[in-house]
Amino acid sequence: MSATVKKLLWLLLFALAADRLYAQNKIVVFQSDFGLKDGAVSAMKGVANGVSDALKLYDVTHEIPPYNIWEAAYRLEQTIPYWPKGTVFVSVVDPGVGTQRKSVVLKTKAGHFIVTPDNGTLTLIAQSEGIEAIREIDEAVNRRKDSRASYTFHGRDVYAYTGARLAAGVITFEQVGPALPDTVVTISHQPAILEGNTLKGTIAILDVQYGNLWTNIPADLFKQLNIPAGGRLQVTLYHKGKQVYSGSIPYAHTFGDVPEGQPLAYLNSLMQLSFALNMGSFAGKYHIESGNDWSVTVKK
Amino acid sequence: MSATVKKLLWLLLFALAADRLYAQNKIVVFQSDFGLKDGAVSAMKGVANGVSDALKLYDVTHEIPPYNIWEAAYRLEQTIPYWPKGTVFVSVVDPGVGTQRKSVVLKTKAGHFIVTPDNGTLTLIAQSEGIEAIREIDEAVNRRKDSRASYTFHGRDVYAYTGARLAAGVITFEQVGPALPDTVVTISHQPAILEGNTLKGTIAILDVQYGNLWTNIPADLFKQLNIPAGGRLQVTLYHKGKQVYSGSIPYAHTFGDVPEGQPLAYLNSLMQLSFALNMGSFAGKYHIESGNDWSVTVKK
Amino acid sequence: MSATVKKLLWLLLFALAADRLYAQNKIVVFQSDFGLKDGAVSAMKGVANGVSDALKLYDVTHEIPPYNIWEAAYRLEQTIPYWPKGTVFVSVVDPGVGTQRKSVVLKTKAGHFIVTPDNGTLTLIAQSEGIEAIREIDEAVNRRKDSRASYTFHGRDVYAYTGARLAAGVITFEQVGPALPDTVVTISHQPAILEGNTLKGTIAILDVQYGNLWTNIPADLFKQLNIPAGGRLQVTLYHKGKQVYSGSIPYAHTFGDVPEGQPLAYLNSLMQLSFALNMGSFAGKYHIESGNDWSVTVKK
Repeated sequence: MSATVKKLLWLLLFALAADRLYAQNKIVVFQSDFGLKDGAVSAMKGVANGVSDALKLYDVTHEIPPYNIWEAAYRLEQTIPYWPKGTVFVSVVDPGVGTQRKSVVLKTKAGHFIVTPDNGTLTLIAQSEGIEAIREIDEAVNRRKDSRASYTFHGRDVYAYTGARLAAGVITFEQVGPALPDTVVTISHQPAILEGNTLKGTIAILDVQYGNLWTNIPADLFKQLNIPAGGRLQVTLYHKGKQVYSGSIPYAHTFGDVPEGQPLAYLNSLMQLSFALNMGSFAGKYHIESGNDWSVTVKK
Repeated sequence: MSATVKKLLWLLLFALAADRLYAQNKIVVFQSDFGLKDGAVSAMKGVANGVSDALKLYDVTHEIPPYNIWEAAYRLEQTIPYWPKGTVFVSVVDPGVGTQRKSVVLKTKAGHFIVTPDNGTLTLIAQSEGIEAIREIDEAVNRRKDSRASYTFHGRDVYAYTGARLAAGVITFEQVGPALPDTVVTISHQPAILEGNTLKGTIAILDVQYGNLWTNIPADLFKQLNIPAGGRLQVTLYHKGKQVYSGSIPYAHTFGDVPEGQPLAYLNSLMQLSFALNMGSFAGKYHIESGNDWSVTVKK
Repeated sequence: MSATVKKLLWLLLFALAADRLYAQNKIVVFQSDFGLKDGAVSAMKGVANGVSDALKLYDVTHEIPPYNIWEAAYRLEQTIPYWPKGTVFVSVVDPGVGTQRKSVVLKTKAGHFIVTPDNGTLTLIAQSEGIEAIREIDEAVNRRKDSRASYTFHGRDVYAYTGARLAAGVITFEQVGPALPDTVVTISHQPAILEGNTLKGTIAILDVQYGNLWTNIPADLFKQLNIPAGGRLQVTLYHKGKQVYSGSIPYAHTFGDVPEGQPLAYLNSLMQLSFALNMGSFAGKYHIESGNDWSVTVKK
């Protein structure tokens, strides 16, 4: 066997192996409040494809209500755990674009990367997955060429570009920029608590498509009330402290366990206590919204 | 030529061939009534990527009106024939989630796979493409690990997971679960008929973006009326048997054949008789909706 | 080294090289006024996958207002420059479907391809990127098999099919069809001008998600007014010549430079003069829309 043949074979093996390594993950998942009616999201994906056309580009949602950083934080928390380790998320809800908020990449202990302005967007995921490390994006190197004149579209010029370079392996996590202390800007929010026999929490978010209410009360805490499937809960809802709903609601496994139009309490897909009307809209019927101003108490 | 070189070469050829085989189709196409405002669709795609990052993930629509199984059935029928053989569809319009409806995979005679609750979603495609085989999803093996506590998001935990495994070749169709009889749950719907000189049908669905009415009258049946392009049709529309529109409408090849704002009858992209206003909304102007309650008669 | 081994090795190298060449770009980006509520966009992507499952399919937007060719032109102009050379765009806003407008592929001097009805959609991109060549789609070869009976969905049967074949390398640009003269159908629009000390332009489009107004006044022209950051502009807006807004607005780098709810003038992400309310909707508050009927004057 000649040396030439051997060399050639090694070259081939190496090329095949490189292909396979090169094919690992390379996923970028975008989120924004841009909507889908114009070309903004597409411009970000174009920039990412310009970095590497081997990337696979997906979305969380681009229908975050404009400037709503809390909802951006919630949608990341709802989604990230279901994506493979190594996936890069680019989240751009950025009312402070062009001002002094920091542009960062968070690496979580679970191995996900989030590229975002550090404006509260990381509030929930930093807590649930833990902070492995945070780096500030060094725009001297991690900014799209010839984009310095534009001050208002960092989503395209900095975040999509940096996220794509990180996912494609053009830069390492260390090459994002200087390390920051292991802390993120956090939106103040009251965790759910059990006081005596009463659970106190907030309507963290709406399941908007169906009008279901998702609280911030986790399954573990709820289980301390010892309510069996079919048992009833006394639920009271408040807006800025003023009662807006009070009722007795059965705890069910799923919607079909109660008649159409009837309320139920259940553990949602994130294993948090939620309220719904079977085949109806609880939020619509009782004019309930979400956020820190909307609180809830639950008793046996 | 040494035996080692031969072995190595065969290995390389095999690897290349495997790449090509592995690259075959691997397409999963999602449909749901989840909307795109939250992270639900993204969670499904994350789970699919966790099964294999070689999959290519697309969508029919996620804007099926909540719980509207008929429209889910229609959109599958409208779309599936244009995708290559072997494509796996995951359709989740599932008002009965967590109850006793069966979770199934239909293999059509045309070679498409549809993963869905068997709740009527398969009504139309089972008829048009034919049933090659149906299997019930065995959740003992085809369910996302650690997801048993959640009863309300089978789209993520069962359907996306199973669809991805099937498309990626992790499981064969046979490994989905036990075979079922060759029949699906069907939504009752009246096929169009020709009675004497009168065609009788329903407004099967709206072409929502433009307000066009799509009937269930196929081209073959319509042609029995012998109306040439430019000839006129007497069209009457009824809601629950009460007349809501009556008019004489020209049969045209395309919208631009009539002046702006004027009605026309035409064969739509699925080759079914349809009504529109050129550059306007027929449904909007005459307050027409779709479904079994909305019927139509057509005469020469 | 035997001749057989050599041959085999060359074969392998060739196969690997082909893979890499075959992997180049292969991107198709879709735009339409179809909306995302039905299966139309998915049918186009299914057809493209039927041509080659190696294609990567993306979107500009499918929420172009129905029949609005000007907005289709604007969204292409806004997006195309950020995608890599060689990318194929398929734009289908086609009120004249089935009539005599030409179906064309434009190759720009920047190396992008746009597949579209030549109905004004190319107005802006042909001017900004320049016309390298235009060819008319020869439907005798570049039309989906068995689609001749349908007159109303060229997006699926002609444009998606041809765009996919071009992107996948199934046909060359020359094989699209016969060359046309280097000119496109153009929507009349008044470029911005400087008259004495007054800039005159139009509200070219809304940044719909936020209610910002984007004019057609480019940065280069605006800079001739010599207004420093923080300096003020006298802005007057007209609808069909009638004044609808007049005010003094500071020129700022970004939204956060002015208090919440206050107006600012800035250069948008396309480097054109724009007006916004920080955290608010300028268009919503003052009932401003876009198009040739909406004009603006700007003075120091």
